Amino acid sequence: MQVIKQYIENNKQRLLDELFELLRFPSVSADPKYAPDVLNAAEYVAKKLTDAGAENVEVCQTAGYPIVYGEKIIDASLPTVLVYGHYDVQPPDPLELWHTPPFEPTVRDGKIYARGACDDKGQFYMHVKAFELMMRTDGLPCNIKFMIEGEEEVGSNNLSIFVKANKERLKADVVLISDTSMISMEHPSLETGLRGLSYLEVEVTGPNRDLHSGVYGGAVANPATILAKMIASFHDDNNRITIPGFYDDVIELTEQERRELNAAPYNEEEYKKDLDVNELWGEKGYTTFERTGTRPTLEVNGIWGGYTGEGAKTVLPSKASAKISMRLVPNQTTDKITQLFTHHFLNIAPPYVKVKVTPHHGGEPVVTPTDSIAYKAAQKAIAESFGKQPIPTRGGGSIPIVALFEAELGLKTVLMGFGLDSDALHSPNEKYDIFNYYKGIETIPLFHKYFAELSK
Amino acid sequence: MQVIKQYIENNKQRLLDELFELLRFPSVSADPKYAPDVLNAAEYVAKKLTDAGAENVEVCQTAGYPIVYGEKIIDASLPTVLVYGHYDVQPPDPLELWHTPPFEPTVRDGKIYARGACDDKGQFYMHVKAFELMMRTDGLPCNIKFMIEGEEEVGSNNLSIFVKANKERLKADVVLISDTSMISMEHPSLETGLRGLSYLEVEVTGPNRDLHSGVYGGAVANPATILAKMIASFHDDNNRITIPGFYDDVIELTEQERRELNAAPYNEEEYKKDLDVNELWGEKGYTTFERTGTRPTLEVNGIWGGYTGEGAKTVLPSKASAKISMRLVPNQTTDKITQLFTHHFLNIAPPYVKVKVTPHHGGEPVVTPTDSIAYKAAQKAIAESFGKQPIPTRGGGSIPIVALFEAELGLKTVLMGFGLDSDALHSPNEKYDIFNYYKGIETIPLFHKYFAELSK
Repeated sequence: MQVIKQYIENNKQRLLDELFELLRFPSVSADPKYAPDVLNAAEYVAKKLTDAGAENVEVCQTAGYPIVYGEKIIDASLPTVLVYGHYDVQPPDPLELWHTPPFEPTVRDGKIYARGACDDKGQFYMHVKAFELMMRTDGLPCNIKFMIEGEEEVGSNNLSIFVKANKERLKADVVLISDTSMISMEHPSLETGLRGLSYLEVEVTGPNRDLHSGVYGGAVANPATILAKMIASFHDDNNRITIPGFYDDVIELTEQERRELNAAPYNEEEYKKDLDVNELWGEKGYTTFERTGTRPTLEVNGIWGGYTGEGAKTVLPSKASAKISMRLVPNQTTDKITQLFTHHFLNIAPPYVKVKVTPHHGGEPVVTPTDSIAYKAAQKAIAESFGKQPIPTRGGGSIPIVALFEAELGLKTVLMGFGLDSDALHSPNEKYDIFNYYKGIETIPLFHKYFAELSK
Repeated sequence: MQVIKQYIENNKQRLLDELFELLRFPSVSADPKYAPDVLNAAEYVAKKLTDAGAENVEVCQTAGYPIVYGEKIIDASLPTVLVYGHYDVQPPDPLELWHTPPFEPTVRDGKIYARGACDDKGQFYMHVKAFELMMRTDGLPCNIKFMIEGEEEVGSNNLSIFVKANKERLKADVVLISDTSMISMEHPSLETGLRGLSYLEVEVTGPNRDLHSGVYGGAVANPATILAKMIASFHDDNNRITIPGFYDDVIELTEQERRELNAAPYNEEEYKKDLDVNELWGEKGYTTFERTGTRPTLEVNGIWGGYTGEGAKTVLPSKASAKISMRLVPNQTTDKITQLFTHHFLNIAPPYVKVKVTPHHGGEPVVTPTDSIAYKAAQKAIAESFGKQPIPTRGGGSIPIVALFEAELGLKTVLMGFGLDSDALHSPNEKYDIFNYYKGIETIPLFHKYFAELSK
């Protein structure tokens, strides 16, 4: 490891500068006005892979944003690690809440503040630099392939087409992804599960136009009130979701699994203080970690209707809408849950209004087995670079393509992320700690080393 | 009346052109970016009053937008009619739903389409032209004073200051306002009551920042869901408002009053068809007219929170907000209702969130007595120009300053409006029928005539 640490030390500024340049591309996949920037980011990634020593580097065209591929095959008999990441980022809004511009990476207190600093540029770029490090020091223990896409934040629709069409090219022994978080740098951890996702947009329409609330108020149903009543009905008094059939396929944790999960350090006062809430809220009978990692949930991600501008306007709105998503756990499936929600929403809609349900992208829940070679290699790598065993955790977020890789390529995924919950993913002032960035570059070569050793 | 009709016929195009010019000012009081236009509209009104023959015309400065004053005193022994109107208009949004630009008056099928066409420019300008007509034909039967303000749509805060400071100047025998509607031109009607208004903005805050709904979903309360639950609780299964004390001061109509009110023509199928709703909704035990004219209501005018842009964003929002207003009936009072709502909202807020309530402008409910000289004068005027007695109606909307005039000037108000419910006030594609515009100019001089006669 001394060689690794030395290389990082010798190149520390350049390692940062290259990441900053990557962060400056406003590669927002959800908003078409950023299209040129997304494409430029892809070109930059391709160039950096080539500079690091990758071969057969290609910016692969898709029906949407391109997928950047590159590889270095040392020896066909060695195991192959397939690295996945994404160069697209979440929208930056609300802009006014950022302390520094989202696409001008700024360092404060040892943290890099920028949209994408953690999710996912800082994290996947560690793999590019770890690859370069191995190439320029002791060489690669495993073959390596890179697949860095540009549509993760909008559902990775074209990735599944690409994967199905490139099974030969993508042949490997494990998928390695850094897009999750650790408990802390004092308590390193490894994600052993991810929740799935079901995402829908609903629209409730009352009268065919906005009405004067004096002339019509009291005579017709207000779609905002009706939508509120429908949303209010989704959770009962125990904060359980009321959609019929919702929990049918949910697998409860065993007592031992619950003990292991809840053994992870947790300070409820600090958790509440960090969020500035007086009381937590969740499904009765489950701890905070169980609620976010092992139980399915339903959230309103956005709601709007009527007049929302400055001042007062006495309108009875024609429409009210909401974006609603559900996080799923094994063995729920995204299509079935989407269907259950849709059916239920249409069912509970009263006759005063018309409702519309539009599904968005989803993803299946996954669990990564802790007795696999890949998991053990990650465990050893982290134990060596951190000086302590990683704690197994269940992640609340979704990375839908992990299920895709298993289904289409027959590959398990190791989720070895170096983020922190405080990184403010999807929020203003997203950041990534510089310490974590270097730590990842230090740990990843160890994964490759141990994966090769354990595969013999 | 022949003289009246002849004058209108001889000047019909100019009467329209002058109104169109007034409509072209985007005098939106709610949005500061239109300030120059609001001021220009005031100057135009002043000029037109002067051209019509008014004296002591003044654009009276206030802490906000000016109040345009003008008068013509024929004889101190004659009764004085004080005409109130407003030259400011509602915001035009959503712009994309207008068929023609909101500030470019366009005639289609005998209707003038523009923001403010009915509310209130088309309506108050009839009085300016009726005044001109009387001045240029048989003279004024009564003295006349004009008070046309520029902040009605944002609460008329500076009007009350002006009224209190100008009691001498504003001395009169009745206030005459055209800012309401008739059932139809086949069924002319007179407004005998207006609902009051209480308007508030509420904000529910959960975590101190937007969160990743995967990382935190299930562990903390979602403010959008909590707000939905609170809004959902406002109406019970009979669609009665659940705020404690809300109905305490409400005066029920007598059986006779209900009979008179419900005698007005009403076609439920057409009402539903016009709004394109399958079923109406309202307080159990009351008809549509009772619900909109004589019962208090609560409406969500706007609701927003979280991500509302294009595509999907899996955020657990930090805040959710709503604009909520209540229409009041005698003897509810706006301050008391605002206080009851605020108290109740703070009370039902669960401990997982923090809530904030911000009151906006309000107004008291009013009823105009049908046995007054002023009401009878309006009744006779309409009977003559329409050829049938007007039906007494209870209006759903609010004109808060009517209560102000009674309290500060000791004056009753006659609400003689020529609008129609289909005019789409506060909505896109607001219009005013040309027939109604001319009919008002024809009827108003008759009011002056009969008010003078009945006052002898």
